[in-house]
Amino acid sequence: MSLQPLRSNLPAFLDPYLPKNKANGRPFITLTYAQSLDSRISKGQGQRTIISHEETKTMTHYLRAHHDGILVGTGTVLADNPGLNSKWTPPTKTVPTTMSESPRPIIIDMRQEWKFAGSKMWELYNAKQGKAPIVIVQDEPQVREPDVTYIVIGQPQFEWGSLLKKLREDYGIYSLMVEGGASVIQQLLLRPDLVDSLIITIGSTFLGVHGVEVSPEKPLNVENVDWWKGTRDSVMCATLCHD
Amino acid sequence: MSLQPLRSNLPAFLDPYLPKNKANGRPFITLTYAQSLDSRISKGQGQRTIISHEETKTMTHYLRAHHDGILVGTGTVLADNPGLNSKWTPPTKTVPTTMSESPRPIIIDMRQEWKFAGSKMWELYNAKQGKAPIVIVQDEPQVREPDVTYIVIGQPQFEWGSLLKKLREDYGIYSLMVEGGASVIQQLLLRPDLVDSLIITIGSTFLGVHGVEVSPEKPLNVENVDWWKGTRDSVMCATLCHD
Repeated sequence: MSLQPLRSNLPAFLDPYLPKNKANGRPFITLTYAQSLDSRISKGQGQRTIISHEETKTMTHYLRAHHDGILVGTGTVLADNPGLNSKWTPPTKTVPTTMSESPRPIIIDMRQEWKFAGSKMWELYNAKQGKAPIVIVQDEPQVREPDVTYIVIGQPQFEWGSLLKKLREDYGIYSLMVEGGASVIQQLLLRPDLVDSLIITIGSTFLGVHGVEVSPEKPLNVENVDWWKGTRDSVMCATLCHD
Repeated sequence: MSLQPLRSNLPAFLDPYLPKNKANGRPFITLTYAQSLDSRISKGQGQRTIISHEETKTMTHYLRAHHDGILVGTGTVLADNPGLNSKWTPPTKTVPTTMSESPRPIIIDMRQEWKFAGSKMWELYNAKQGKAPIVIVQDEPQVREPDVTYIVIGQPQFEWGSLLKKLREDYGIYSLMVEGGASVIQQLLLRPDLVDSLIITIGSTFLGVHGVEVSPEKPLNVENVDWWKGTRDSVMCATLCHD
């Protein structure tokens, strides 16, 4: 399925929030997600939910093309079976080159619940329309899937700072887009030391109190705020305030 | 404290959502509130919380000037001690005429927990800067406060349809702005048969998971959506979809 054209005023709006080369030893991190008016990212656990308009879907693919990596948690890959590639073709190119424009998928799958083989990501990789993933696991896998790169943490929890450093130093991930799910987003909202840009699409719908919500454990402020108005959605770009 | 001037593009943006005369026997209802990105309307029960920018505060006073009545629940009057008047002066007038521009406060206070005397509303009324309230109560008050109009329901719950009809027929409330709190908002979000316009200000802040949230009991869609972009806030106007 092809994308709608990118809305012409989006590149200038997004530009200040796109990755810059950073000398601090970790990748530039963009935290981005789509939520309903009542800050739900899905109708319920494991239920794929369309929140945003086709035009903000194009924006997501544009953002993906500007990042080396794209990170999601197990819940998201199991629920959505996402492709995580970029279907956006830069206007300077006449032939789509999806594979080179696409970010490298990075899946947090500590308990090894997800399989690459047979997934949408695997289909895209085999069709040369996406890259093969890096999978973060607690223990050494009994069977290593072909083409998957594993990072074995060796304990139940990982530390964001060292994981990000490793992704940059060992895998050349200089910019990372984090797309979800709720648990990953909520952890990173409280990490202004790690998150460089925050991009939230707000869809004009209510998913209701039984949906999966994003709300951080404590209040937090953002700065450098700008809003973009779409047909049905609004997009906020900002940076997290350091207290 | 005086208001910031009204942002010049707000009247045209708001116009399609302002009250129209309706022949259906109830007032035109505008449901409006300010929320954080994580759909919280306050930091915690009973905690007055500033979410929106001064410019959207001016918008609220502009909206109030366009309604005959303004309705809130007990929780809101007890927590915020709001004035509920309109400090917005139409550009055609040179002298502020706050009393005539202001809507009539209507307080849902079934258990008679709130007192008019000594409140901000009472101060404004005595200074001829606001109107005296109509208070909705379950039982006949033992002491009727001066200048307060009581509507006695006679049972623990009231029915929105008949209350609204009464407000129009007996008290000339042809347009009603509903400002909160969470319980009133959540009830009315599920009543597309009663709500004519929905106006939500989204402030660029997170109030966190312990804040008071607005999320309806079930998913719902909106239509006729438009967004306005402020300095730090975004405002969405819409109508509720009839299923």
